[in-house]
Amino acid sequence: MIAHTPLPLYYAVIFTSTITGENQNYAAMADAMVKLAQQQDGFLGIESARNELDITVSYWLDLESIKNWRENAQHSIAREMGRSDWYRTFKTRIAKVERDYNFERE
Amino acid sequence: MIAHTPLPLYYAVIFTSTITGENQNYAAMADAMVKLAQQQDGFLGIESARNELDITVSYWLDLESIKNWRENAQHSIAREMGRSDWYRTFKTRIAKVERDYNFERE
Repeated sequence: MIAHTPLPLYYAVIFTSTITGENQNYAAMADAMVKLAQQQDGFLGIESARNELDITVSYWLDLESIKNWRENAQHSIAREMGRSDWYRTFKTRIAKVERDYNFERE
Repeated sequence: MIAHTPLPLYYAVIFTSTITGENQNYAAMADAMVKLAQQQDGFLGIESARNELDITVSYWLDLESIKNWRENAQHSIAREMGRSDWYRTFKTRIAKVERDYNFERE
């Protein structure tokens, strides 16, 4: 679903990845991390889509919330497992959302 | 593929959409728009993934390049067809990429 974020300014973490192969542990961990992120202060929403590429964009109130999420202990462990086992390549981009536009069919 | 963007600062256009149904014209137009975007001044890269949600993130040198792309005649026509026929809902977010991090398996 498209995330119902507030009016800008807010932040986006654009996380783009390719994985080494299908892996049940990876899928379970990814789901768990989404649930955990949703419980964090400053979390605004998340959008995810995947085919060859996995794109997950999470939205945050400010850089402080992103830093806290980055330093979350369970998230740090998951990230290390990702680096050691699951990801072939990834790129994380921290971006300040300055404007947005919506369309909804009537 | 993960886009090989330059060092920040640069801009991201995060375009998240759901469509009304599968449509060959939509798929062909989407492909044509990617090819056209790649020819524009200031274009830096594009990433796309899709399941129920379609997430396309394009990267641009500056706000001027994004404005020019928005005003491109063929792109404007495609956007109107999207509003009239294809999209159920979409959200466009313009964001300034301030930092990025990479991982590549050795």
